[in-house]
Amino acid sequence: MASSTGDRSQAVRHGLRAKVLTLDGMNPRVRRVEYAVRGPIVQRALELEQELRQGVKKPFTEVIRANIGDAQAMGQRPITFLRQKRAERILQACGGHSLGAYSVSSGIQLIREDVARYIERRDGGIPADPNNVFLSTGASDAIVTVLKLLVAGEGHTRTGVLIPIPQYPLYSATLAELGAVQVDYYLDEERAWALDVAELHRALGQARDHCRPRALCVINPGNPTGQVQTRECIEAVIRFAFEERLFLLADEVYQDNVYAAGSQFHSFKKVLMEMGPPYAGQQELASFHSTSKGYMGECGFRGGYVEVVNMDAAVQQQMLKLMSVRLCPPVPGQALLDLVVSPPAPTDPSFAQFQAEKQAVLAELAAKAKLTEQVFNEAPGISCNPVQGAMYSFPRVQLPPRAVERAQELGLAPDMFFCLRLLEETGICVVPGSGFGQREGTYHFRMTILPPLEKLRLLLEKLSRFHAKFTLEYS
Amino acid sequence: MASSTGDRSQAVRHGLRAKVLTLDGMNPRVRRVEYAVRGPIVQRALELEQELRQGVKKPFTEVIRANIGDAQAMGQRPITFLRQKRAERILQACGGHSLGAYSVSSGIQLIREDVARYIERRDGGIPADPNNVFLSTGASDAIVTVLKLLVAGEGHTRTGVLIPIPQYPLYSATLAELGAVQVDYYLDEERAWALDVAELHRALGQARDHCRPRALCVINPGNPTGQVQTRECIEAVIRFAFEERLFLLADEVYQDNVYAAGSQFHSFKKVLMEMGPPYAGQQELASFHSTSKGYMGECGFRGGYVEVVNMDAAVQQQMLKLMSVRLCPPVPGQALLDLVVSPPAPTDPSFAQFQAEKQAVLAELAAKAKLTEQVFNEAPGISCNPVQGAMYSFPRVQLPPRAVERAQELGLAPDMFFCLRLLEETGICVVPGSGFGQREGTYHFRMTILPPLEKLRLLLEKLSRFHAKFTLEYS
Repeated sequence: MASSTGDRSQAVRHGLRAKVLTLDGMNPRVRRVEYAVRGPIVQRALELEQELRQGVKKPFTEVIRANIGDAQAMGQRPITFLRQKRAERILQACGGHSLGAYSVSSGIQLIREDVARYIERRDGGIPADPNNVFLSTGASDAIVTVLKLLVAGEGHTRTGVLIPIPQYPLYSATLAELGAVQVDYYLDEERAWALDVAELHRALGQARDHCRPRALCVINPGNPTGQVQTRECIEAVIRFAFEERLFLLADEVYQDNVYAAGSQFHSFKKVLMEMGPPYAGQQELASFHSTSKGYMGECGFRGGYVEVVNMDAAVQQQMLKLMSVRLCPPVPGQALLDLVVSPPAPTDPSFAQFQAEKQAVLAELAAKAKLTEQVFNEAPGISCNPVQGAMYSFPRVQLPPRAVERAQELGLAPDMFFCLRLLEETGICVVPGSGFGQREGTYHFRMTILPPLEKLRLLLEKLSRFHAKFTLEYS
Repeated sequence: MASSTGDRSQAVRHGLRAKVLTLDGMNPRVRRVEYAVRGPIVQRALELEQELRQGVKKPFTEVIRANIGDAQAMGQRPITFLRQKRAERILQACGGHSLGAYSVSSGIQLIREDVARYIERRDGGIPADPNNVFLSTGASDAIVTVLKLLVAGEGHTRTGVLIPIPQYPLYSATLAELGAVQVDYYLDEERAWALDVAELHRALGQARDHCRPRALCVINPGNPTGQVQTRECIEAVIRFAFEERLFLLADEVYQDNVYAAGSQFHSFKKVLMEMGPPYAGQQELASFHSTSKGYMGECGFRGGYVEVVNMDAAVQQQMLKLMSVRLCPPVPGQALLDLVVSPPAPTDPSFAQFQAEKQAVLAELAAKAKLTEQVFNEAPGISCNPVQGAMYSFPRVQLPPRAVERAQELGLAPDMFFCLRLLEETGICVVPGSGFGQREGTYHFRMTILPPLEKLRLLLEKLSRFHAKFTLEYS
């Protein structure tokens, strides 16, 4: 087995043998995994926080984590109802009446039924079958599970999966780990990050030369791009998937996060069913949801689910088997999911407070989405599409050629160089666009809209000023 | 893409196209995954429960789930201290002071430090570094992560992993999914399921003909076999791993579950460190622990951790990266783990009650372990090794040749046939030995010792009587 140079020199210095498990000898697929949302920038942010605690002087007094959609870490108070649980009903459905017992691997039956009723209400009465609902450890877990099912073949028959660019890097990371082929389709930045079916055709046609495309992933509302798909767009995507025989994965974890006037969330399930034959009864679809986003932002509980539609029954059994190896999703997260999908009814005593809290959170997010777009678009060299939904802006930044050269000298992506400098000088932690994918020669970053409104305003202005200074410095 | 026969005929009947994702076309590695603890027996148990609820007459009134180590589902009350949390201290360490925020991917730093101190106390003061502790979603999650790192190569250079037979099927399932080679070493049933280093040599030697063995998994106390390894045995295993250049995985989730007089838990970490050079500073080791077992049995929270020892620093970074793709372990599970590793001190007000509850649970488990061995060994055709630790008996059953033939006609493993009949006639749900692995021609089942003592006695007697009747029926 090959041993890395570092290991070899260490071995020589200390008279040690090389490790059994080295960087060179380890799983090459795992090495290829990248996940920018928690990459080197966040690593550095942690170090800076430590330095601040140790009293090291910095040009800022705190690190602002605008890198990840973590509402409660940004000071959002938990929704009261979600913390004053309908405990008795849920505990009755638990083994031993305790959150401390395993549930069945697909999740507590009562909660699967509540999820199905939630989906039916959301989709205007279109039926949902609890047996097609599988609870998961956050949405990520369910997305990985469905992707695992799809991966097969070798060489030119390897499974290809179409993903948007920019994308949420769970997709690229998982495809790398599974050894599947990532097939990029580009969202159209000039049209507010719209998904264009002509671009899907281009991507698919090219991919067929070297792999077997079998699935299409859509993120709606978009992460990191914040667009909300129109109903027409969703119909066109479904028609495309059906004609090209692609399994559809609809990442709909931001379904409650729609802010722009004229934008509305349409679930892929609802649109598919309303399209009727031949689509409704045949197009295979998996739709994912989570407790981590929306108005609740309960990330730490790792609650989520997938609803599968038109999935082959034998494959569905295989999926359940695969889930059972990990025993069950965390039961407190299942309980929380139940509260999210069964909010208080108008006749419930907690209704008024719940509605008020929920609306307050969503109204503030809408204001912050608007503010972000405004402030960034006033800054020379920064342009920002409307944040129609989700929790992020993904502005494009002009970087001067000398900054790009300097980054290349340092072996960094130019936007990584920009974001690292931003972090060092302002304490603001955002994620470089290169971690999500972007058109060659363009540079972006992802910033959450989650900090409290007045703080967010200061951050946006500080960031814009930093960009101006950075541009000047390298011009 | 090939389509299964079922799909084709269905397609013909309904004028439908074949699915994109079919049993034939799906990930072949996922198809090869097997996980008996939640396999067809448990599926059938669920159906039987439903039938009982619907009033279908059965020769029993309830299904007894003796298939899985789920203490609270069996009526064990949660330890009071674990539900009256030291909330403030833990919440202070959470983002936004809320369990609803993500933690860093390796787990909350405060809790990693508490885990390190727990390990130090457990191991008589041998230092543990919090930076080598990674919290996880139950122990399973961490075990899969470490195995993922190890998998590489193709054909004759594919990674081989030595696992005990009988084993906990997480190992076989994960190796199948990762495409690694499972290398079986047999525990010695005649010597109370002892691990014999000569058998490790045999297994390794044979495996080297067709793969590259890189890791050795040990489960101590044993699951499903209940043996507790002696210190001498652990030393011999470490020497073997060192000489043969194998990464050691020590599954120590039952470290609090030791019952037999003369048996004692020795952690691999402690023994390794006490062996001194060249082992202590070089042998790579990952040790796993969980909140799901022990005296606490908090399965639903999915808390756990891995401590890595002598792991290559670059590989450790890769492991952290891989964990970060899934964001973080469930935070309520992290909080619970903190309470498990930081129990009340003698000066704390909750100390007396905590100790009393803990000791009561462990004393009852010890009595149930003894009872199980006694009752089974009194039954003709059943022999049961002492349950020295963990939560299961794994008795050997004689099955008459005609029963074996009948099973083969039905396409079932003989012990699966026995366990299915047992379930149908008595409602007792246990797992066939074939799901764990056993020597060719021998038959076993795994049964938990968790039901309350008097109920367990009735179950053991009922099961023994059923075996006698079954034997008579097929003789």
